[in-house]
Amino acid sequence: MSKKWVYSFEEVADAEKYVGGSWEGVRALLGGKGANLAEMARVGLPVPHGFTVTTEACNAYLAAGETFAEGMWDQEAEALKALEERTGKKFGDPKNPLLVSCRSGAKFSMPGMMDTVLNIGLNDEVAAGMVELTGDARFVYDAYRRLVQMFGSVVMGVDDDLFEDVLTEARAKAGVKTDAELNAEQWKEIVAEFKKIFKAETGRDFPQDPIEQIKLATEAVFKSWNSKRAIDYRNAAGIAHDLGTAVNVVTMVFGNMGNNSGTGVAFTRDPSTGERVLYGDYLINAQGEDVVAGIRNTTPIAEMAKELPEAYKQFVEICDILEKHYHEMQDMEFTIENGKLWMLQTRDGKRTARAAIKIAVDMANEGLITREQAVLRVTPDQVDTLLHPQFDEAAKKAASAEGKRITKAVNASPGAAVGIVAFDADLAEKWGVEEGKDVIMVRPFTRPDDVHGMLAAKGILTSEGGATSHAAVVARQFGVPCIVGASDMVIDAEKRQFTANGITIKEGETISIDGGSGEAFVGELPMVVTELEEQEDLQTLLKWADDFRRLEVWANADYPQDAQRARNYGAQGIGLCRTEHMFFEEVRLPTVQKMILAKVESERQEALDALLPYQRDDFTGLFRVMTGLPVIIRLIDPPLHEFMPDHDEVFAKVIEMRVKGETEGLAEQEALLAAIESMHESNPMMGLRGVRLSMMMPGIVKMQVRAIFEAACIVKKEGLEPKPEVMIPLTGHVNELKTIQPQLEEVAKAVMAEQGVTIEYKFGTMIEIPRAAVTAAEIAEVAEFFSFGTNDLTQMTFGYSRDDAEAGFLLKYVEDGILPRNPFQTIDQDGVGQLMKWAVENGRNTRPDLEVGICGEHGGDPDSIAFCHSINQNYVSCSPFRVPVARLAAAQAALREKGFSAK
Amino acid sequence: MSKKWVYSFEEVADAEKYVGGSWEGVRALLGGKGANLAEMARVGLPVPHGFTVTTEACNAYLAAGETFAEGMWDQEAEALKALEERTGKKFGDPKNPLLVSCRSGAKFSMPGMMDTVLNIGLNDEVAAGMVELTGDARFVYDAYRRLVQMFGSVVMGVDDDLFEDVLTEARAKAGVKTDAELNAEQWKEIVAEFKKIFKAETGRDFPQDPIEQIKLATEAVFKSWNSKRAIDYRNAAGIAHDLGTAVNVVTMVFGNMGNNSGTGVAFTRDPSTGERVLYGDYLINAQGEDVVAGIRNTTPIAEMAKELPEAYKQFVEICDILEKHYHEMQDMEFTIENGKLWMLQTRDGKRTARAAIKIAVDMANEGLITREQAVLRVTPDQVDTLLHPQFDEAAKKAASAEGKRITKAVNASPGAAVGIVAFDADLAEKWGVEEGKDVIMVRPFTRPDDVHGMLAAKGILTSEGGATSHAAVVARQFGVPCIVGASDMVIDAEKRQFTANGITIKEGETISIDGGSGEAFVGELPMVVTELEEQEDLQTLLKWADDFRRLEVWANADYPQDAQRARNYGAQGIGLCRTEHMFFEEVRLPTVQKMILAKVESERQEALDALLPYQRDDFTGLFRVMTGLPVIIRLIDPPLHEFMPDHDEVFAKVIEMRVKGETEGLAEQEALLAAIESMHESNPMMGLRGVRLSMMMPGIVKMQVRAIFEAACIVKKEGLEPKPEVMIPLTGHVNELKTIQPQLEEVAKAVMAEQGVTIEYKFGTMIEIPRAAVTAAEIAEVAEFFSFGTNDLTQMTFGYSRDDAEAGFLLKYVEDGILPRNPFQTIDQDGVGQLMKWAVENGRNTRPDLEVGICGEHGGDPDSIAFCHSINQNYVSCSPFRVPVARLAAAQAALREKGFSAK
Repeated sequence: MSKKWVYSFEEVADAEKYVGGSWEGVRALLGGKGANLAEMARVGLPVPHGFTVTTEACNAYLAAGETFAEGMWDQEAEALKALEERTGKKFGDPKNPLLVSCRSGAKFSMPGMMDTVLNIGLNDEVAAGMVELTGDARFVYDAYRRLVQMFGSVVMGVDDDLFEDVLTEARAKAGVKTDAELNAEQWKEIVAEFKKIFKAETGRDFPQDPIEQIKLATEAVFKSWNSKRAIDYRNAAGIAHDLGTAVNVVTMVFGNMGNNSGTGVAFTRDPSTGERVLYGDYLINAQGEDVVAGIRNTTPIAEMAKELPEAYKQFVEICDILEKHYHEMQDMEFTIENGKLWMLQTRDGKRTARAAIKIAVDMANEGLITREQAVLRVTPDQVDTLLHPQFDEAAKKAASAEGKRITKAVNASPGAAVGIVAFDADLAEKWGVEEGKDVIMVRPFTRPDDVHGMLAAKGILTSEGGATSHAAVVARQFGVPCIVGASDMVIDAEKRQFTANGITIKEGETISIDGGSGEAFVGELPMVVTELEEQEDLQTLLKWADDFRRLEVWANADYPQDAQRARNYGAQGIGLCRTEHMFFEEVRLPTVQKMILAKVESERQEALDALLPYQRDDFTGLFRVMTGLPVIIRLIDPPLHEFMPDHDEVFAKVIEMRVKGETEGLAEQEALLAAIESMHESNPMMGLRGVRLSMMMPGIVKMQVRAIFEAACIVKKEGLEPKPEVMIPLTGHVNELKTIQPQLEEVAKAVMAEQGVTIEYKFGTMIEIPRAAVTAAEIAEVAEFFSFGTNDLTQMTFGYSRDDAEAGFLLKYVEDGILPRNPFQTIDQDGVGQLMKWAVENGRNTRPDLEVGICGEHGGDPDSIAFCHSINQNYVSCSPFRVPVARLAAAQAALREKGFSAK
Repeated sequence: MSKKWVYSFEEVADAEKYVGGSWEGVRALLGGKGANLAEMARVGLPVPHGFTVTTEACNAYLAAGETFAEGMWDQEAEALKALEERTGKKFGDPKNPLLVSCRSGAKFSMPGMMDTVLNIGLNDEVAAGMVELTGDARFVYDAYRRLVQMFGSVVMGVDDDLFEDVLTEARAKAGVKTDAELNAEQWKEIVAEFKKIFKAETGRDFPQDPIEQIKLATEAVFKSWNSKRAIDYRNAAGIAHDLGTAVNVVTMVFGNMGNNSGTGVAFTRDPSTGERVLYGDYLINAQGEDVVAGIRNTTPIAEMAKELPEAYKQFVEICDILEKHYHEMQDMEFTIENGKLWMLQTRDGKRTARAAIKIAVDMANEGLITREQAVLRVTPDQVDTLLHPQFDEAAKKAASAEGKRITKAVNASPGAAVGIVAFDADLAEKWGVEEGKDVIMVRPFTRPDDVHGMLAAKGILTSEGGATSHAAVVARQFGVPCIVGASDMVIDAEKRQFTANGITIKEGETISIDGGSGEAFVGELPMVVTELEEQEDLQTLLKWADDFRRLEVWANADYPQDAQRARNYGAQGIGLCRTEHMFFEEVRLPTVQKMILAKVESERQEALDALLPYQRDDFTGLFRVMTGLPVIIRLIDPPLHEFMPDHDEVFAKVIEMRVKGETEGLAEQEALLAAIESMHESNPMMGLRGVRLSMMMPGIVKMQVRAIFEAACIVKKEGLEPKPEVMIPLTGHVNELKTIQPQLEEVAKAVMAEQGVTIEYKFGTMIEIPRAAVTAAEIAEVAEFFSFGTNDLTQMTFGYSRDDAEAGFLLKYVEDGILPRNPFQTIDQDGVGQLMKWAVENGRNTRPDLEVGICGEHGGDPDSIAFCHSINQNYVSCSPFRVPVARLAAAQAALREKGFSAK
């Protein structure tokens, strides 16, 4: 006996058995749409009879060079017979005709494949019979022309414009504006015209045999799996190419059978706000596509309670059953045929970030899901979105309704942006940087040459490419909102304009892009930002998350105001305060340069003494804000030449003065140049900086440690509790710490003795040199804490200079899939992560209570946070704005480790 | 009972028992000199009676604040009594006086400690008695004045010049030139004078009690362990400070008792050539110091056969016994007193590199030692020395004899150098670089400011510092011969001259320095170099080494002539052929630049096509020379900007032209500048190079692979056997290899198909990025071989940019002991080595027959070779000149692993 290729909706239990009982397996075998239809049938909801041809049949068909697998067509033919029996109707019977729809349905919802062919089963004879049966010739010939049009364009590949031209002509001839105004006779004529076009384009008559119609439609669905658009989409979305699509054949029900009929789409909750209200639209006496196409003005679903009270009551009950069954907000399609409600589809509903959070919290409070599930249902990106300015959802909706939505494509980099369109990078840079305008750069695609323009733009929109295209990768890299792959958009480079959705935008005109949803709009959409304090649901969710997580969340903050925000957002400490930023401040820089250029020690000490009060003030503010919580202060890290004027500038000046024979001030400039040149390093990233600099010139860090402890004493005397942790950067050998740490601790003790105050403190180190990670056991003998500097650790483990690499080969590597992710965004677990894992294990072997954290940018990346959790770090430290994101991500990591899942 | 602090020579068995039977332990307890005297006594050789106060007694004395340990002095006093009994003489007995010598003796021979006090036991009364006994007043008063002088200066710290002034005056008064011409009466007067000086300087009379003399001398020996010179020496030589020194008290025997007496020093073999002949000098009727001081012309030892045939015969037998006992060439001191031969010292003899090799080979052939021992007895440095030009040993000896040796100090960096003296770095650079002269830079010490001068010099000589001083570290780093710590040298910076050994050298005068022996000479000494082919013993030794080693030794060679030398020296393959060196050649560089600057692909391909024949020729030559052996060719590695003109040069030119208003050619220069600037990277070491460059621009490496395989086909057609292995540099992620390697293999196969020739080949990669080491398991899925690029691996594991670090903090780190060794010279086993170990283990887990080697500079460093052996690499690859060194080092590693030792 051949394999089972076809499952009726009633046979979902067999399918589940076949795949070993897993719901994921059923979805993979029957596709999402088919699985959900079958599931609704199983729980007793009114679903039209139908069946699904499996994804395995699709794969077998494609593998065999577009030939049905053995026994497949026989099974489908049998299923069609069974359908006749169940419905009591017959294919091709003018007296009692059976009509069906045919649709694709893969495991994941996926544009690019054949969508829908309705009204299959109609032919000349059946149409004539139905006119008699229904007495509604207009309905019947409209339905027939739809079949010929859809079948022609979708199944047989006829250019749809040919059909549309006929309609346009017919409307003109009849002197009407809309299709709805055409009468039965006119539709009958149109059917005849369509059949002529079909014959001319395909070389054959429109097939009159319903079974042949179904067979051809089935093949068309299979083939559409490998259409270019479908392949492009899968590449962009990271969907495997070997899943295949199922074919769903479902008995037609008609919402356009009179005023006791209708059709609609609805969500069980508001997908925009998350409110627990039935949300959707319907139309009396209409077919589903009328709702979607927006040809007629739809009616809010609540009105149905008055117009079709019975059906409405039943639908509300069904919504409740479905939410309880799936434990998720559902997005449904339904049709009412002569008062009888039919469910045509259900699936988990897409929602905005705000709605996602509210729904998760509400459902947990309703007891529909657990708090663990609630925490797992919201993505860290959704939390992030809520903390940044976004377009007002109502405004977006209104703009869409007004036809101002230009496109909806791949959401490559989140965020909202408004600006004037520029079609090339140079112009984007000119407008953006030189003229200070907000620019949206629009290109077919981007290349490394375009990066300067991308950086100058507020947003990026491309017509080609997927989620890992150059544009997408660069945009995410630099946090620029970006939409890619807007393939419906036509860019006319010569006219400097683009057209999409019938709208033409010229260079310099304003558009709004939402990188989170992938939508672009004409004109400027209003933006909203809501503070965390005002977001009650998010607060609740994060509170729950805090209960579940093991990782602490700290923040990187250099200034008191940043620390305050971090603390408000839930940070449990400061993981990185960069002291050198303070050195760059205008009033201090000359003193810093004086310190660097000092020829004798006394001169240097004088400059350091002048810097001390500034540094002390910096730390005092920080300790006040963070009282009771640890504050890690990193001692000076960058090479000294970063504090000096640019070499080329001074060099050019010297040459110019020499050529012109100017002598006044030349000697000074030459001396300055010589000093800068003496500091020059071929690879400064790996040069004299961090602890190395301190070993050569301990005065600077001694001043810093003095400032830290003087500040701590001041704050302690105020009755607060400063908890400084002094971090030594760039350690590569334990002997560096063994040499410098005691000297610094001596300063700390001296200050405490002077002030008569005892401060709780730690000394520790960054782990950012591969050798430090490898020799962590020895380093932990001296260091009381480790903080992974994953930016530098990634640079050196890969041997990538970040500045050079990200402007060069690195993004191409990500684009080409050489690197699965940009390792500067998400920790490279196999390489860098392995070193981190060893460091934690070996460090704790030496010092069991070793405090381990991360202060690189990865500290705010959810996947990296999950990794930090998995290797038993104590905390992650990220920018203040990402603290809520990290709180959620840390909780999710803990929950997943324990086996919890969102479903 | 108190601890045993004193061992008579007869009690060596007790000492051995006390330390658990180890000879090393005996040496540690009794010092080298004491242990050897006792050992000679044990095997029945004629050693004067005596005893040793242990090193433990010294340590206890110093630890207790210069107080004898409990019971120590009692034991020494008892030993003195026992000595009286054994010799039948008595201390202080004018009729039968016992005289002894007192010397220090640590585990390792060590200058800086108290040397020797002879004739202890003499006093006024004994002297008078001895005059009667011997009838030789001249001898007795000479002996007495020696005691007073040595005791005064060495034990009591009296300035020796005071004594010498008296002698000078006495000679003048007597009208004679040498001490030997002074008569008994004159010596008696001198004794009186010396005693006056003693009293004046020490505030006490010269002690008349022999026991007190010994007690004071014992204390003086103990104290000398902590003299500044001794501490400095130990610091320089890496000797532990807690070893302590022993005190040896030995009965005096006199070689100056007439013509039947004599004294001499001898080696069992020629320490210069290694020949198996008794080698040394003696003097009839003389004391030991007369031989050493060179006051009288010594007689070659062979003459003794005629002059003192009995003693000579006995001495020859003793030499034979000692060699057989110690299985080593011995360096001995002896004295003949009235015809009776006494052995006063034996120790393993120092020897030249040439002698070391000959002696090891001869002894193995004689059956005195095993071949394993022979291989372990020669240091890799000795082999290295023999392959570089050296001073002619005879010339050195002659120069010493002529008093032309300026100093002998710490041998900081081996090699021979001749040049004119310069006293500062700027002058050294001016003379060395600008005027092309050979310069020896002479400084009290060096600092980072001096490096430019050091690099311009042929050799370096300093009066201060030890083996890890700045000068020493830098010199070794750059292979510049260097002597440091020549503390007898006085530099007069003002007069621009220095003085040592009574010789004054002015700036600009020529000296010769031997960094291997630590000796400096006046004038130019002749140099010799001997090819390996001519060094039969070395060939034999290396042949034996080959039998013992597991590691293969390959060589790094870019050109056929280098490969030929490597093969002659025993290389078993080429581990690294750097292809980019070929790109820098004058005729090719313009084409390379054209390729780089190409705007369109066709232009680039044209340039590549032009380069192909050059590269093919390069490889053809290499394959011919290395027929039958593997040749690893590394594809292009450096960033492209290295092939372009210097930025600052072009930049300066552009600015100059602009300022001057010159327009002709300005556009070209500006375009060139723009191109160079577009290639600029902040950290080029970690930028677009290696496989990254190939991924972006595969044309270059495809051309190279084509050239490699076309060359191989040509050579194969000649009947030879080329074995190319193509090496991809800088791999960091397996996907890089997965992408590029198949493309290259395709080119290889295409060439072989075109030529109709099959070539045996491999594709593999450098492991030089930390991530590659960490993810070796995955990389070995694609790569067929690994070659550790330990230069870059060290750079990135430490995060050190070598160029910057070695000119900056790195050498200071080594000097200060932050880093135990320079990791660019010897593999850092804890960090870099750990990564290598993991890479080998994980790589072989994936691919058990993975070929693993090293091609960094470490491949020629003996300690690093031992490490490569220990982690089971297949081969090391080093410069052709170091191949013999590596062969020996590899064998030694294998032997030591199996528990063999040199002894």
